[in-house]
Amino acid sequence: MSQKYWEDFDLGFSFKTPSITVTETHVVNWAGLTMDFYPLHMDAEFAAKTPFKERIAHGPLIFGMAVGMAGLAKVEGGSIIAWMGVDNMRMHAPVKIGDTITVHIETIEKRETKKESQGIQIWKYSVRNQRSEVVMSFNMNFLMHRKPSGQ
Amino acid sequence: MSQKYWEDFDLGFSFKTPSITVTETHVVNWAGLTMDFYPLHMDAEFAAKTPFKERIAHGPLIFGMAVGMAGLAKVEGGSIIAWMGVDNMRMHAPVKIGDTITVHIETIEKRETKKESQGIQIWKYSVRNQRSEVVMSFNMNFLMHRKPSGQ
Amino acid sequence: MSQKYWEDFDLGFSFKTPSITVTETHVVNWAGLTMDFYPLHMDAEFAAKTPFKERIAHGPLIFGMAVGMAGLAKVEGGSIIAWMGVDNMRMHAPVKIGDTITVHIETIEKRETKKESQGIQIWKYSVRNQRSEVVMSFNMNFLMHRKPSGQ
Amino acid sequence: MSQKYWEDFDLGFSFKTPSITVTETHVVNWAGLTMDFYPLHMDAEFAAKTPFKERIAHGPLIFGMAVGMAGLAKVEGGSIIAWMGVDNMRMHAPVKIGDTITVHIETIEKRETKKESQGIQIWKYSVRNQRSEVVMSFNMNFLMHRKPSGQ
Amino acid sequence: MSQKYWEDFDLGFSFKTPSITVTETHVVNWAGLTMDFYPLHMDAEFAAKTPFKERIAHGPLIFGMAVGMAGLAKVEGGSIIAWMGVDNMRMHAPVKIGDTITVHIETIEKRETKKESQGIQIWKYSVRNQRSEVVMSFNMNFLMHRKPSGQ
Amino acid sequence: MSQKYWEDFDLGFSFKTPSITVTETHVVNWAGLTMDFYPLHMDAEFAAKTPFKERIAHGPLIFGMAVGMAGLAKVEGGSIIAWMGVDNMRMHAPVKIGDTITVHIETIEKRETKKESQGIQIWKYSVRNQRSEVVMSFNMNFLMHRKPSGQ
Repeated sequence: MSQKYWEDFDLGFSFKTPSITVTETHVVNWAGLTMDFYPLHMDAEFAAKTPFKERIAHGPLIFGMAVGMAGLAKVEGGSIIAWMGVDNMRMHAPVKIGDTITVHIETIEKRETKKESQGIQIWKYSVRNQRSEVVMSFNMNFLMHRKPSGQ
Repeated sequence: MSQKYWEDFDLGFSFKTPSITVTETHVVNWAGLTMDFYPLHMDAEFAAKTPFKERIAHGPLIFGMAVGMAGLAKVEGGSIIAWMGVDNMRMHAPVKIGDTITVHIETIEKRETKKESQGIQIWKYSVRNQRSEVVMSFNMNFLMHRKPSGQ
Repeated sequence: MSQKYWEDFDLGFSFKTPSITVTETHVVNWAGLTMDFYPLHMDAEFAAKTPFKERIAHGPLIFGMAVGMAGLAKVEGGSIIAWMGVDNMRMHAPVKIGDTITVHIETIEKRETKKESQGIQIWKYSVRNQRSEVVMSFNMNFLMHRKPSGQ
Repeated sequence: MSQKYWEDFDLGFSFKTPSITVTETHVVNWAGLTMDFYPLHMDAEFAAKTPFKERIAHGPLIFGMAVGMAGLAKVEGGSIIAWMGVDNMRMHAPVKIGDTITVHIETIEKRETKKESQGIQIWKYSVRNQRSEVVMSFNMNFLMHRKPSGQ
Repeated sequence: MSQKYWEDFDLGFSFKTPSITVTETHVVNWAGLTMDFYPLHMDAEFAAKTPFKERIAHGPLIFGMAVGMAGLAKVEGGSIIAWMGVDNMRMHAPVKIGDTITVHIETIEKRETKKESQGIQIWKYSVRNQRSEVVMSFNMNFLMHRKPSGQ
Repeated sequence: MSQKYWEDFDLGFSFKTPSITVTETHVVNWAGLTMDFYPLHMDAEFAAKTPFKERIAHGPLIFGMAVGMAGLAKVEGGSIIAWMGVDNMRMHAPVKIGDTITVHIETIEKRETKKESQGIQIWKYSVRNQRSEVVMSFNMNFLMHRKPSGQ
């Protein structure tokens, strides 16, 4: 795969990732790894009495998986120097055990930096379930390589 | 533990969580769960040639652990109705395998909502390592129960 | 949370922990971690022919989870110096995959030691399922800090 | 258990291992450990549209489990010096989540080596499901201790 | 392996299991599975200031592994009907990350029951480290099949 | 990524995958998932007395990871219909905990089938460590889509 640069991703550039089914195993392993045993995720009796009616996946799990799935898509092609942060992470709908998620990613902002060899892009991640409902969205800020002059 | 409310957490209220050491096991299990095998985290030969000199933990892992650690502290006391989102997540310094992290949390904003029974608070999470360096920070937005009148 | 002492837990003091649903993931991960692949837990065809009719959770898994859940409740408040052992662990009923357990804990014995700064307490752990049936019980022996004189 | 040797396993010698149910947890943990997120194993929506109609277990997972199950049977009795390789691994039928597998193992070839203290055996592993269908087979090549003369 | 019975294990019968090294992975995975994040096991900075000087393994993890290791030894040969409980579990010395444990098991009590087809045995498990120090011991109560008359 | 076909991979076509460091976590998690607790992998005391001097990774773990790493490279581009099997899997050198592996893959055989829409390819996988030593090799047999005529 050839090296890519800040210049290769125009405003409005978009792609989607492979999909994955969020299983009970993801939820239980997540809880153990991150120490988050909030009963809405781990206690089926409790969850049955909430408006959700059943255990739902942790929001940060969906975030973590979305970040990983974007990498699996292998689209950025070495252009990213560093992950600078996340803004505006919002949960729009619950992800239930057994839902299948896909991430739709779009370049929503790009700007140059003082350093000529680098640029910044903001990619909006929208996680959708199997009914195409957006369940979570967030904006990732990336520092990227600019194309060396002469190329 | 008695039920707590939006009114119980004033601006400037703060606490810190228990601490945990981030191990190679956390990093490898994280990669598998979230599908993020970026070589800076997983390839010791690659990492040795970066400015970090060694594998570092995934940023979203530190975020996920910080969220879980806040729960372990059991401070919110049932006041939180829902997690509304995250803003301004920034990585300030790398977390290396073997570093021990603690989360310092502070109420930085609170406001009423139209619904009298609910309020909003923004809690700033600052993750520090064993040298008290802030390695990551982010703002969590919570919808909270307000104290029923008469209490 | 303020520091607690041996004096703070009278005979008959009791509390219950958060609840958690025991999933197939717990059982499979447990088997791998502890090397216990006994077919009643791991072989659905075998289990279907037993009086239990289905796979059941390992007894020591329920013990391990109960110990952890007691910690999550954060009741002991730093009073415990050391875990001295367990007596009288008994399985009273099977825990099936999907059952939700809660631990009820009660101080059933307390005594001073020769060392004035320390005392011993025995806490009885009773693990109940979602139908309030006691599925397992055991007695934990703790060495605790005594309240410094003058406090 | 007494030490066994190349001489103790004649052509046609056979045994079967304990059985285990292949769960969703095995599949999800496998994917994470081996980085194999191919959608037929991980994406329920995709799998539903294939001839298999549902997610199936990774072939190499069945291979890995079969090798482990053979060890659990504790038949080789210290005779094996080294695993020399595998030939003719073939998947004959899908293993679905919830299927229970057992390995039938048979000595299909044995030969001496130049070194008098060592011999070679090829053991054919046939993995069967709960309906006794062979789902996978492969041949394992083992270097074994020969019985010291005089025994 | 031929079926074994209560009669096959005399008082004083003993065996030892395979050995295993207790790794950081065991400790971290254990914490996540059982929700036990006590800092002596998980916080290297905290542990460094204790008399142990470093993180030590959870006691119940050693118990769980010992139970599993006994099964791996495949000595009971189908004689056990049910695990009736545990008594007198005591931790004698810490197990540090990297220690290698082996379980020594001995029949210390056997008695008949009213039911002629069943008997009870108490097996004492002594877990030793690589320096042959006993780190944990406990007594397992087993209900066993008695040999059918005429055999 | 555009759809690829049997025609797109000529004899001698080759690529290499991303690299990954094989950690103690991989080995311990593997053992638990596949039930393979052979002491050369799990018992540091035992391993220290072997010619390897230390614990080494399970051969099938390296196979499983190599298969997954090939997928991460995203080279086959939808050309593969099915995995038909593996031949000639051989371990050439031990993989120690901490070694970093990369897979080099080459098309070594291709043939048509009676069905015009399908072809077969054999890809040789050579797993190398950080010193470029081949530690394992095996041949994967793939059934592939042929390019529809007119394209």
